[in-house]
Amino acid sequence: MNSPSYRTLLDTPCLVVDLDRLERNLAEMAEYARTHGLALRPHLKTHKTAEIARMQQAHGVVGFTCAKVGEAEAFAAAGVLDDVLIAYQIVGDRKIERLLRLAERVRVTVAVDSVAVAEPLSRAALARGEQLDVVIEVDTGLRRAGVEPGEPVLRLAREIIEMPGLRLRGLMTHEGHAGRASTTEELEGLARMAGEAMVASAELLRREGIPVDVVSVGSTPAAFATTRVPGITEMRPGTYVFYDAAAFRFGRIGPDRVALRVLATVISRPAPDRAVIDAGSKTLTYDPPPPGRTGYGYVVEYPDAVISRLSEEHGVIEFPPGTKGPQVGERIEIIPNHVCPVVNLQDELFVVRGGEFVGTWRVIARGCVR
Amino acid sequence: MNSPSYRTLLDTPCLVVDLDRLERNLAEMAEYARTHGLALRPHLKTHKTAEIARMQQAHGVVGFTCAKVGEAEAFAAAGVLDDVLIAYQIVGDRKIERLLRLAERVRVTVAVDSVAVAEPLSRAALARGEQLDVVIEVDTGLRRAGVEPGEPVLRLAREIIEMPGLRLRGLMTHEGHAGRASTTEELEGLARMAGEAMVASAELLRREGIPVDVVSVGSTPAAFATTRVPGITEMRPGTYVFYDAAAFRFGRIGPDRVALRVLATVISRPAPDRAVIDAGSKTLTYDPPPPGRTGYGYVVEYPDAVISRLSEEHGVIEFPPGTKGPQVGERIEIIPNHVCPVVNLQDELFVVRGGEFVGTWRVIARGCVR
Repeated sequence: MNSPSYRTLLDTPCLVVDLDRLERNLAEMAEYARTHGLALRPHLKTHKTAEIARMQQAHGVVGFTCAKVGEAEAFAAAGVLDDVLIAYQIVGDRKIERLLRLAERVRVTVAVDSVAVAEPLSRAALARGEQLDVVIEVDTGLRRAGVEPGEPVLRLAREIIEMPGLRLRGLMTHEGHAGRASTTEELEGLARMAGEAMVASAELLRREGIPVDVVSVGSTPAAFATTRVPGITEMRPGTYVFYDAAAFRFGRIGPDRVALRVLATVISRPAPDRAVIDAGSKTLTYDPPPPGRTGYGYVVEYPDAVISRLSEEHGVIEFPPGTKGPQVGERIEIIPNHVCPVVNLQDELFVVRGGEFVGTWRVIARGCVR
Repeated sequence: MNSPSYRTLLDTPCLVVDLDRLERNLAEMAEYARTHGLALRPHLKTHKTAEIARMQQAHGVVGFTCAKVGEAEAFAAAGVLDDVLIAYQIVGDRKIERLLRLAERVRVTVAVDSVAVAEPLSRAALARGEQLDVVIEVDTGLRRAGVEPGEPVLRLAREIIEMPGLRLRGLMTHEGHAGRASTTEELEGLARMAGEAMVASAELLRREGIPVDVVSVGSTPAAFATTRVPGITEMRPGTYVFYDAAAFRFGRIGPDRVALRVLATVISRPAPDRAVIDAGSKTLTYDPPPPGRTGYGYVVEYPDAVISRLSEEHGVIEFPPGTKGPQVGERIEIIPNHVCPVVNLQDELFVVRGGEFVGTWRVIARGCVR
């Protein structure tokens, strides 16, 4: 490759967003949702920037998804949020207070997976003379939070519809376990099972007279599979804006589709088979590689190299025997294993188009764990 | 334990610093350095706060250590830095420019491990009519950056003393590999070997007429072993201010000595053996456990529980059969595997004394990877 000007212009380590690739990724997912009659509600955690949220709005979204109240507050303050699903159990008086304050400005729906979570929400909403929209979080195989599909969903739904401060809108799941499959067939099988469990649970509630407007699924790797199940109404992909090393192994996309890369500099060549770069776990994170890959990211210029060890500010790259490898001072680009936490470590993204640096975007929802 | 007031007062997830424990840790290391005639130059990366840097100064330090220029700039701007070792290879014109600007305000020493790194530094310093203090980084077994002990150090030293913009002050190493040992004996053996390699290299240079004023070693786990080798002049521990789960296994300290904990809330109890907390990899990080432990941190209230899986905002805790475990809404405290990157994810630390919340400290050098 010839060396685009941003590679020498920008100081490292930093995150570089390719605008053309980003726009292609946004357009493709929006087109898929439109074609399949699905509401698109992207998760903001991947990019955490107002600029990309606005681009997503321009492509047509029903609203956004956040995990934490703090993330939603950051986007509301930036004026780019009018409808949000907090896909998380909000526990504790102070957070519930913030959630209800947010609901004064923005349409808010929040996940619940137990009476213990739902009751304080209902009480607090009622005390304000309001009703809060909720969806039941269903565990379709991830084994994280959520209630089991079928009867357990129905039992919780019956409790919720009796709570005067809550209004049950439907069901949500995050079928993230499907993305850990080793083959496309396995991925599609797990995703379809998750989608079917959601639709069956929704049908069970409807048969009992409980209306279910929303049947919402999440996860980028499974996005094109779970949503083929008739009855799914909404999708919440996140990483599709950038993609990452976890997106490769299903073959649908290659490194050329990845819109965000870590630009790093080689700072030491202590041995012929070893280089050290200025990006460590404070930049790349220790997020594990997807099945079938090793190391802490994909080195674009040296696809056979392995980022074998990290410390906070050092990345150790090992090269196969016979590889010449880069010199001290050389720049390299890395596709991270998981892009969301990598963005979370930065205050800004550097935006390029056609190899030229065109500006910076602020990561407005960095941190925001509360 | 009775429930100290900060546990209900503070919202979660957040980092809680116990002031009494912190002061004990600071005093102990300062006393050790004094007793053994060592210069103490703590690494600022662990706490990244001006308040703790000032406490360290009050206990007596010769200066501080930083990895990146940006960290040193943050502390210089806060007015708490007068002498800093940048224990890192500074590569690239823009960073060298910043390094030299910093050297106008603060005494700066910087690590070099190759002619490729040293020459641009010399040229840039010379162009300003200045000399930059450097130390040679020696690889005593970590296999990261650095030159091999002995002859390779001498060869590089001979090149450096010919560079008119540089002034060679001595040698440094980070013997972090010793901390990965499985037993105290192994730890002490590796640390002693590292210390002896440093002293032997320093002696080799001196025999060739090259003065060596500084023989500096780093790493908290090895701190009390490497520095017993006569001829070591300086120690650069970092994590000793707080300690972490990596500090347990050598027996010298227990959880009661750890001055920083993650306060988290249980948000879901989807199964009898499983709880989900509001601290995921965005709080605890994916930093691996020390040898002999599993999971992403040590749960103080449930030492037999394992934080078996993380996603960004969720931590999944598994309990041994028969454990009652916490309820939704209950608070728990976690000692992270590695405290430095955990601090790096937060904007503030919450300070307590005797169970009472007494104030917040700003994490002034969060990020700062450039």
